[in-house]
Amino acid sequence: MSSSTWPSSTGWRAVPDGFGRDNLPFGVCRQGDRRFAAVRLGDAAVDLDALQRAGGLRDVDLPAGVFTTGVLNDYLALGPGTWARTRAVLQEADLDRVLVPLADVDMVLPIEVADYVDFYSSEHHARNMGLILRPDTEPLLPNWKRLPVGYHGRAGTVVVSGTPIARPRGLVAGDGEPEWRPTRVLDIELEVGTVIGVGSAMGARIRADDADGHVFGFVLLDDWSARDIQAFEYQPLGPFLAKSFATSISPWIVMLDAVRPFLSAGHPQVPEPAPYLRSTRPWHLDLDLEVDLNGTTVSCTSFGHMYWSFAQQLAHVTGNGARARTGDLLGSGTVSGPEPGTRGSLMEMTWRGRDPLALADGTTRTFLEDGDTVVLRGRCGGPGDARGWIEFGECAGTVLPAPHEPGGV
Amino acid sequence: MSSSTWPSSTGWRAVPDGFGRDNLPFGVCRQGDRRFAAVRLGDAAVDLDALQRAGGLRDVDLPAGVFTTGVLNDYLALGPGTWARTRAVLQEADLDRVLVPLADVDMVLPIEVADYVDFYSSEHHARNMGLILRPDTEPLLPNWKRLPVGYHGRAGTVVVSGTPIARPRGLVAGDGEPEWRPTRVLDIELEVGTVIGVGSAMGARIRADDADGHVFGFVLLDDWSARDIQAFEYQPLGPFLAKSFATSISPWIVMLDAVRPFLSAGHPQVPEPAPYLRSTRPWHLDLDLEVDLNGTTVSCTSFGHMYWSFAQQLAHVTGNGARARTGDLLGSGTVSGPEPGTRGSLMEMTWRGRDPLALADGTTRTFLEDGDTVVLRGRCGGPGDARGWIEFGECAGTVLPAPHEPGGV
Repeated sequence: MSSSTWPSSTGWRAVPDGFGRDNLPFGVCRQGDRRFAAVRLGDAAVDLDALQRAGGLRDVDLPAGVFTTGVLNDYLALGPGTWARTRAVLQEADLDRVLVPLADVDMVLPIEVADYVDFYSSEHHARNMGLILRPDTEPLLPNWKRLPVGYHGRAGTVVVSGTPIARPRGLVAGDGEPEWRPTRVLDIELEVGTVIGVGSAMGARIRADDADGHVFGFVLLDDWSARDIQAFEYQPLGPFLAKSFATSISPWIVMLDAVRPFLSAGHPQVPEPAPYLRSTRPWHLDLDLEVDLNGTTVSCTSFGHMYWSFAQQLAHVTGNGARARTGDLLGSGTVSGPEPGTRGSLMEMTWRGRDPLALADGTTRTFLEDGDTVVLRGRCGGPGDARGWIEFGECAGTVLPAPHEPGGV
Repeated sequence: MSSSTWPSSTGWRAVPDGFGRDNLPFGVCRQGDRRFAAVRLGDAAVDLDALQRAGGLRDVDLPAGVFTTGVLNDYLALGPGTWARTRAVLQEADLDRVLVPLADVDMVLPIEVADYVDFYSSEHHARNMGLILRPDTEPLLPNWKRLPVGYHGRAGTVVVSGTPIARPRGLVAGDGEPEWRPTRVLDIELEVGTVIGVGSAMGARIRADDADGHVFGFVLLDDWSARDIQAFEYQPLGPFLAKSFATSISPWIVMLDAVRPFLSAGHPQVPEPAPYLRSTRPWHLDLDLEVDLNGTTVSCTSFGHMYWSFAQQLAHVTGNGARARTGDLLGSGTVSGPEPGTRGSLMEMTWRGRDPLALADGTTRTFLEDGDTVVLRGRCGGPGDARGWIEFGECAGTVLPAPHEPGGV
């Protein structure tokens, strides 16, 4: 385990660690015209296609070329037995001859996203948004503790970490007629995405306790949000253009098998959920998260704060008989904790702009300005943690000005 | 043109007409293990793969095997120049040797749906729903005439006409705790779906007047809806499980080129839309629609009643810089006209159940019962119409009981 062989006194971000043989997250690398699936080991990518061609994966039943399709979907569809065998082989194999330095590759979007669903599963976040947007009423709506509230987002605009984020235009309410202009209230949402490897048939719902038969792993996810566009458009059918311009995910999918030591039962749910949402196994994940804005850490929180688990989210998505598919992506919703320093959106951190954030460069921020860079990071455990040390890497994006529009519109 | 060569005095549904050389809609047929793309001609499918292999499409620049992938996406991505050349060749070609009787094939879902967006673009429908659900307030919300209100639906549960529709379960409000049970308020929504052939790059929005560079064609679409599930879940993020269990589309995609004679300017829009939604070309479609419930025609309406055009919907989807993709599907929203007999949902037809429908078999309906069959039909023009006669065929579905749940839940 890397955490014991490569200890570090400079903190979890300072060294390329937490990417040992107990982690081995999956991604897709581009090197010139070639794309190949890989797992990360330290600062290197293990070229799985090269390993397969060299016979190093002969003990796993894999189709030829499964790691050269440009995305992981075909591999993910092979199911948890194959995932586990691959992992077991990789943990023991001699990988020296198939290592490619990360500096020599670009990471691309690791999956073709089938359906993207975004949830709203942090009680702290939902309460904060209620208090901010509807200060005179009960912050949690009547459905919130009965089901994991969620909606479909745009699968086609999920992008890999590092993709620039152009400030979107939209219709925004004003004193008179609404105005079509670049958003002035560009926000982030710190989330964790669950990647579905094995889908389900129409009519066959997935029980929460069967989640590990379907869930391949997790990524960090930034649900970029334009709050002024959202405010004008969202009634009665929900957010649309305020969210659909871009959703960033981290390039390395951390396997559920890698984070099993960090699964926990979560907080008690009162009232007891409806039968289709019940689970007896621990499906919350003790994953530490942080938000970095232009080099300043502006939030440190934990995915363990969530009210609804990823397993309950999956049970909900299929609860009406809808099928799940390989490549489905379930966003957790903004991860916020109970304290001011543990919130996952600028809306909450600045309380709708009332309390600007002080950054290390001496500037302040309410919402994002052009040129700002946001980096999400995550890890389970760390140096000295008996459960291990599993890094999620980074989910980063830099805000670009709104594109020039001929004619000034 | 079939309408002049095969006139009929028995009405437009009685004969397999409106599928002449001026129509030629695209679909995908299954015959045994084989799937092939086809256009419909009368009661036959023109096997496009067989035609291509026989050299009948040599004047069109087509990749080998483009009609055997099982979906039309690769063909659609070739763009409007290729679509138009294919159509021109097919209108003149000798097709006798590549005709397959429709009775000998099954129709499958013609596209892999990329993102599915459902709009709400009928003013009559939006007003009716406002009057029914919020009787004491202005029925149209402030955003409704400023932008085409819409949201993302579930792409993975779009199914082809004829697929049975299992009654979905969901959480429904009651006197005390919400109850998880099969919906008691299962409804239809009569819609028209726009199929995108050519997408756009991130950041490059599509102008409404450029719609014909991107839109391949149209299908009939039934947005099955569970109103009780919807009422409990939809705040604040919009409809989710109430809609995601199934969306049916007709199997034959009618090309935009086939219905150009039926494009019209639509009703004036007041206030004038924002610049990104403006168009100067006619993008409304004079398409007659009807809803059949167990053999009784319960609604006759027109797609020309819509407030927002499909071109404006496409401009809106990409207005924030989101990319469009080959296979994107844009639902129009329920098509309702101004009169009682022209409404596109049972919610409106029965005014939330107050006014049951009398069916020809002597029964009445408020919402759908198990075993009910709904058929949507559509056509442009008809016998004797100087603009021609373009049939859309049928979009059908039969309601099955909710699946048995072990343990009674």
